[in-house]
Amino acid sequence: MGRFYLVQPRGRGHRAGMDAMVLASTIPDDAAGRLADLGAGAGAAGLAVASRVPGLAVTLIERAEDMLACARASIALPHNRRIADRVFVQAGDVTLKGRARREAGLGDDHFDHVIMNPPFNDRLDRKTPDPLKADAHAMGGPDMFEAWIRTAGAILKPGGMMALIARPQSLAVIVQACAGRFGGLEITSLHPRAGDPAIRILVTAIKGSRARLTLRFPLVIHGEAGHGFTPAFNDLNNGRASYLRL
Amino acid sequence: MGRFYLVQPRGRGHRAGMDAMVLASTIPDDAAGRLADLGAGAGAAGLAVASRVPGLAVTLIERAEDMLACARASIALPHNRRIADRVFVQAGDVTLKGRARREAGLGDDHFDHVIMNPPFNDRLDRKTPDPLKADAHAMGGPDMFEAWIRTAGAILKPGGMMALIARPQSLAVIVQACAGRFGGLEITSLHPRAGDPAIRILVTAIKGSRARLTLRFPLVIHGEAGHGFTPAFNDLNNGRASYLRL
Repeated sequence: MGRFYLVQPRGRGHRAGMDAMVLASTIPDDAAGRLADLGAGAGAAGLAVASRVPGLAVTLIERAEDMLACARASIALPHNRRIADRVFVQAGDVTLKGRARREAGLGDDHFDHVIMNPPFNDRLDRKTPDPLKADAHAMGGPDMFEAWIRTAGAILKPGGMMALIARPQSLAVIVQACAGRFGGLEITSLHPRAGDPAIRILVTAIKGSRARLTLRFPLVIHGEAGHGFTPAFNDLNNGRASYLRL
Repeated sequence: MGRFYLVQPRGRGHRAGMDAMVLASTIPDDAAGRLADLGAGAGAAGLAVASRVPGLAVTLIERAEDMLACARASIALPHNRRIADRVFVQAGDVTLKGRARREAGLGDDHFDHVIMNPPFNDRLDRKTPDPLKADAHAMGGPDMFEAWIRTAGAILKPGGMMALIARPQSLAVIVQACAGRFGGLEITSLHPRAGDPAIRILVTAIKGSRARLTLRFPLVIHGEAGHGFTPAFNDLNNGRASYLRL
């Protein structure tokens, strides 16, 4: 357990932080080996895992220079000294294939865990409400998930776990991209309040598994009244609890 | 509102009845026009709709002769006299395409509502846990959903609603089969108890809609203790309440 400090660009909403924390919660306290945070941004999810799980070496993989600078700055903070020697920053495009991917430092069968919080674009999304018809290469489009999940499948060891957080409307392309690469999918929907539709889905999957898909009981973010979190969600969001596979 | 009586083959579990009642609950009390129950079996879902919704003419479409006989026997029961003149039985293979489908009486743009509870085979499923790798033509395989949803898309009027109930592991093939035909998908998972994984998904969709997918808050079947239903679920299961789109 423990806190970590994050350097991030101005103007980010709390939602990005919440997504990262929920994603990080999928990693058990006693996990060991290597974890990759694909498209890590400023590194919120990867740093949250490193902070809670002492047995993991964490690699933050990101294409954007400004985000890489934030990640490096976070690791250099005195407050993060405790985790700095287990966190690595690597410039890289998650969508590279085959040899280009390997030459960029994303080798085959290398990681024990992969986590990802792929970007999405709400404005684009409103313009083209059917995600299967949106520009396939745009953020959140089907080709983006195909490329990111293909890379996760390549760089994980057999039996390794992928975890991702995304919007509910990306459900179909995510499950499709997992076919033939991952099995044992466990999907949990996140709902702002009991009775509300989901705003996020959390997906974990095992490389090479043939187990069937499970739809888990959902997580509710806020309590009955006010803006407070439910106790269970608050523990996930603060890195005090993990949300483990069944 | 009102009761109906169902003739059905021996050996059916209560689950089949529950699935049919939940499926029927998706139709509003004041719906009007024509409804098709695809692969209606003995007609449980279609008869439940006819019983609650006086403005609908209901066509039960089924391939199996023994099931057709049950459906006809149900309609002929004196107890069902109230609905008998609005319920029609039609022998037909839901998987027919194009002209063969139209010649079998399943014309284009004809129905206002289509409901379906496609068959599945738990034994087959255990043998080949990955539904995308199971025999595509088998019950519950991806080609079955593609064929059934293709037919639903053909026989519905534009703007018409499809509703189906299925197992969670069929989620991906269902969403995929809807692409280009249906939009505005609303998916609700059904969980035996709070905290348990889902055992069914209820899906509604609108022909030709471009609205995005919604993951609704789940339904819980049983209460905290014992085998009783939750009050909300009990009302759905008894045909006393409908479960309408958002």
